[in-house]
Amino acid sequence: MSSNPTDAPNGPHVSRREFDALFETVRTWGRWAPEGRGAWNRVTADHVGRAAALVRSGTVVPMARPWDTTPGPDNGNPALHYMSDLGDVVAPEPSAHKDFIGADYHGKAVSHLDALSHIAYRGRFYGGGTARELVGAAGTRFGDVAALGSLVTRGVLLDLPAASGTTWLEPGQAVHAADILAAETALGVETGEGDAVLLRTGRFRRRREVGAWDLDAASAGLHVEAMPLLAERGIALLGSDGDSDVRPSPVEGLHSPVHTLAIAAMGVPLLDNLDLEALSAACAEAGRYAFLLLVAPLNVPGGTGSPVNPIAVL
Amino acid sequence: MSSNPTDAPNGPHVSRREFDALFETVRTWGRWAPEGRGAWNRVTADHVGRAAALVRSGTVVPMARPWDTTPGPDNGNPALHYMSDLGDVVAPEPSAHKDFIGADYHGKAVSHLDALSHIAYRGRFYGGGTARELVGAAGTRFGDVAALGSLVTRGVLLDLPAASGTTWLEPGQAVHAADILAAETALGVETGEGDAVLLRTGRFRRRREVGAWDLDAASAGLHVEAMPLLAERGIALLGSDGDSDVRPSPVEGLHSPVHTLAIAAMGVPLLDNLDLEALSAACAEAGRYAFLLLVAPLNVPGGTGSPVNPIAVL
Amino acid sequence: MSSNPTDAPNGPHVSRREFDALFETVRTWGRWAPEGRGAWNRVTADHVGRAAALVRSGTVVPMARPWDTTPGPDNGNPALHYMSDLGDVVAPEPSAHKDFIGADYHGKAVSHLDALSHIAYRGRFYGGGTARELVGAAGTRFGDVAALGSLVTRGVLLDLPAASGTTWLEPGQAVHAADILAAETALGVETGEGDAVLLRTGRFRRRREVGAWDLDAASAGLHVEAMPLLAERGIALLGSDGDSDVRPSPVEGLHSPVHTLAIAAMGVPLLDNLDLEALSAACAEAGRYAFLLLVAPLNVPGGTGSPVNPIAVL
Amino acid sequence: MSSNPTDAPNGPHVSRREFDALFETVRTWGRWAPEGRGAWNRVTADHVGRAAALVRSGTVVPMARPWDTTPGPDNGNPALHYMSDLGDVVAPEPSAHKDFIGADYHGKAVSHLDALSHIAYRGRFYGGGTARELVGAAGTRFGDVAALGSLVTRGVLLDLPAASGTTWLEPGQAVHAADILAAETALGVETGEGDAVLLRTGRFRRRREVGAWDLDAASAGLHVEAMPLLAERGIALLGSDGDSDVRPSPVEGLHSPVHTLAIAAMGVPLLDNLDLEALSAACAEAGRYAFLLLVAPLNVPGGTGSPVNPIAVL
Repeated sequence: MSSNPTDAPNGPHVSRREFDALFETVRTWGRWAPEGRGAWNRVTADHVGRAAALVRSGTVVPMARPWDTTPGPDNGNPALHYMSDLGDVVAPEPSAHKDFIGADYHGKAVSHLDALSHIAYRGRFYGGGTARELVGAAGTRFGDVAALGSLVTRGVLLDLPAASGTTWLEPGQAVHAADILAAETALGVETGEGDAVLLRTGRFRRRREVGAWDLDAASAGLHVEAMPLLAERGIALLGSDGDSDVRPSPVEGLHSPVHTLAIAAMGVPLLDNLDLEALSAACAEAGRYAFLLLVAPLNVPGGTGSPVNPIAVL
Repeated sequence: MSSNPTDAPNGPHVSRREFDALFETVRTWGRWAPEGRGAWNRVTADHVGRAAALVRSGTVVPMARPWDTTPGPDNGNPALHYMSDLGDVVAPEPSAHKDFIGADYHGKAVSHLDALSHIAYRGRFYGGGTARELVGAAGTRFGDVAALGSLVTRGVLLDLPAASGTTWLEPGQAVHAADILAAETALGVETGEGDAVLLRTGRFRRRREVGAWDLDAASAGLHVEAMPLLAERGIALLGSDGDSDVRPSPVEGLHSPVHTLAIAAMGVPLLDNLDLEALSAACAEAGRYAFLLLVAPLNVPGGTGSPVNPIAVL
Repeated sequence: MSSNPTDAPNGPHVSRREFDALFETVRTWGRWAPEGRGAWNRVTADHVGRAAALVRSGTVVPMARPWDTTPGPDNGNPALHYMSDLGDVVAPEPSAHKDFIGADYHGKAVSHLDALSHIAYRGRFYGGGTARELVGAAGTRFGDVAALGSLVTRGVLLDLPAASGTTWLEPGQAVHAADILAAETALGVETGEGDAVLLRTGRFRRRREVGAWDLDAASAGLHVEAMPLLAERGIALLGSDGDSDVRPSPVEGLHSPVHTLAIAAMGVPLLDNLDLEALSAACAEAGRYAFLLLVAPLNVPGGTGSPVNPIAVL
Repeated sequence: MSSNPTDAPNGPHVSRREFDALFETVRTWGRWAPEGRGAWNRVTADHVGRAAALVRSGTVVPMARPWDTTPGPDNGNPALHYMSDLGDVVAPEPSAHKDFIGADYHGKAVSHLDALSHIAYRGRFYGGGTARELVGAAGTRFGDVAALGSLVTRGVLLDLPAASGTTWLEPGQAVHAADILAAETALGVETGEGDAVLLRTGRFRRRREVGAWDLDAASAGLHVEAMPLLAERGIALLGSDGDSDVRPSPVEGLHSPVHTLAIAAMGVPLLDNLDLEALSAACAEAGRYAFLLLVAPLNVPGGTGSPVNPIAVL
């Protein structure tokens, strides 16, 4: 990175040229078929079987935040929830109670999956297709969430506050490759080919205790410097209780550099805004940080992602 | 049921009095805590472990139909899908592509889960609470989908056409207890405590080959006479490629009697409108009809259910 | 038009070459500023004053159909209406009752205004701008409904069934220039510069008496042959109880040729799906078919139109 | 009011007992048929004619704020606007561009009309019906916006800052009967039977110059003490650039006392969040504050109001 590293907690600063070199380093275009499934192609039937074999206690831990209809500094596009039948529309017996839900789910509030069509860099999606040609009113023709199907694999929780003996990472704090390695050692787990890596920064514990803040202004998350390590490990999925990117961005002129590397270069979908508090407690109690992980997005043709409720089974 | 069974394919006819007696027979109110989780309380950590141990080939089969935005006789409330960012709103690099999804998901088109608040009978929810007092604009205070959390258990596919050597059940054809027993024998599987039972009627094969029809007018599904058998078995979840109810309803003055018994009497959530075609093929190929099943609804406080993408792992 | 006129009620057939010549004949690009307001620029303050002076009886007639949430052959995108507060969310006194409305309002059901951005021909909007460059996720940068503001002018009802002594025009029946002239004579009214012309075909009377039908398959409406007459008259707005186009389209390879000429060539916004039954009765009773007309679309920046409730004051 | 008036700008404080007496003073239940149209029944055909006769210059001034999709302290439920067709869905010629709009329009951002069903006091709507019995998932059976139809009447702008030589009223500043009388005198206008009264506080000028603030915490608006004057005058409609209520509320335990008196006691619908800046300038230039006013809400059966774009014609 920069030869003049600053002391900024989100640093070091990365030039656009350095970033582009990184992009080339981790790029895996052309490796998979179907390409729109990206790194989920790493998860073979063998991986699935080994992941299922991780189940010990039978403890099931969902990770979706409550559907958030309350606007706030960390929820600019509140989700919609309306009752469409209070038991008085379809009549008379039995009474049927129904509701409408809706969400512009990308953003900082809804637990969701980013498909490969969510991000394009220099106009190109993962694999090289031109975003402008592939996206229209009916959605995207490359990298939609329907192309991902669902994921069953080994999940690894990198519980950064637990590993470092803190309560949470402060907003704006960057996580580097060395932090990942240290967390793996502290937690007794190592990330491997086809794994889903979940990074806990403690965001929702902090929110509960301190209140909401503007996550675009300051979020704990990965520095791009850590991405070659994750690329080497061959991960299939990256998730976080934030959106994986440290903010403000340390990269010149780029607002979501980790999104860019993961999705557009490596073909790795992201899970954003997971509530990892219960999983943190469950892993601590079980004394293990690897488990069966299941991600079952809605089957939206043309969709750039989906609200999800990922499940860990310990 | 009626002492004068008719030859109607959805019969025999059931009087309201007979239905109410059935309701009492299968009723399990007051048995569980929390009551809003109903029969999902049957699934203990042991069940989860045994279900995970069913994984052999590592084949993963999702069951959600594509998000259906096309109106039709079988889709009265088309789902919404709009691009909220074509890569031209959040600027400039990387480009971010976003979409809005919305649905009044109960009905005949969206693959979804019915929580215990979806149905009340004679004004009362499962457990006896008064629906009118418990449901408001903010949703329901009993039996919301958030109370269910998620489900990991043994799934059993009762592939009725496969068991009977037909391509699909005709719309309006009732499935009786004897049909369930025959299917179990033919398929070499038996439903037990805490299982999720999925009934395939072949609806979506028929739809592909014949076209859409009005499912309220005629659907293959269970006759209420079959419910005591399922109650005895102690199932946790009931699903179907339809909505589990044979239609027209054979019960006097009641439009969804199987919904009523399952949800309001037995505390058994329902999965409606699953695409079971791929699962049928996978089970036939594997020669087994029991598997690890995962259901991960969205975490909507006050919601009466959720769109879902259930996953089988064989 | 075609030298071989058929007897089809929507005829005569028009080749694409003939259509393109018509387009040039009626084209008014470059005449107005701001161009996005198109023919509404014809309505000067003088027109407004003269229109207000038409008020005699003080009878006020709104023309919006009820917000239509019921799917059907003539409503493929049902409008949304949900209660967001039943008086139980904002507490305690007074109780506030609130609702959410939503609509993909273009189509056959919602009474709405088409702004100049609704239609482009050969890739170009009215005035010549390139649609692909001007439209994005945030809407259109040319010809949005906000650019129209609102319209107060003289309205003229061409009540075609009343003029011809029938109850309604049959679906698929084309209206030609001669029919317009005959209607003007029969009704004692003449369309002039800056007027809003409303064509009644009797659609909603027929719907009430006969039921719904597929309007894309067959609608009464204008044949393109009538458009030079309306262009000559200098109309500012064209409305109908259908969508002004006879369907099926008599023009080779073009699904909405009247939309194309009105909006993209003449800069004339359209009003679709007006309920003109009450206005028909009011004009018949008053014995006059000209009145003060008011159109007040929602102020949606980037929007291609708006649901509206036009008002006639007689 | 209170015998111990405070110096608070929103004062004097009003006890609940005093408020209830006021409610009785201005109550007009049982006077109109249909009752759901409330004070709009005051506007006879004669009023309409006299209002139309006010037109002089032909200047048309719309009052709707731009559809506000941006969340903020003054927009807790951002409106929705999505392109449903970029010209690439309906193919091929002409291209059709379409959008979806949606809004939970009550609140502080969308220019809208409150129908009589928006507010109930002590459980009762205007006329005495029980809100809990009249409101359901399908909307309200009393006082819906469809019952109002549309309004054409004389509008009067009470431009309070202009009348008092200030730029805007400060948030939290109450407007009293004396202020209304003084404004009438200063502006040379008097409110009468069947009029629509529009109060300008200068909110949107302040917002443009100072930025957004929390309007529930502090808004300029009417003190309840002013309502008997407006009741005496027999107004049909009350509107404002805020929501007519001074906030915080000066009435014990009541969050919207002016809403309560206007809607539930007097049957007077409200217009909230109008942009009155252009109208203020137009009236000042014309030297008159009375004009033809048109309000054309969407025709939503069961709806508690509607987004609107009221128009003044001077």
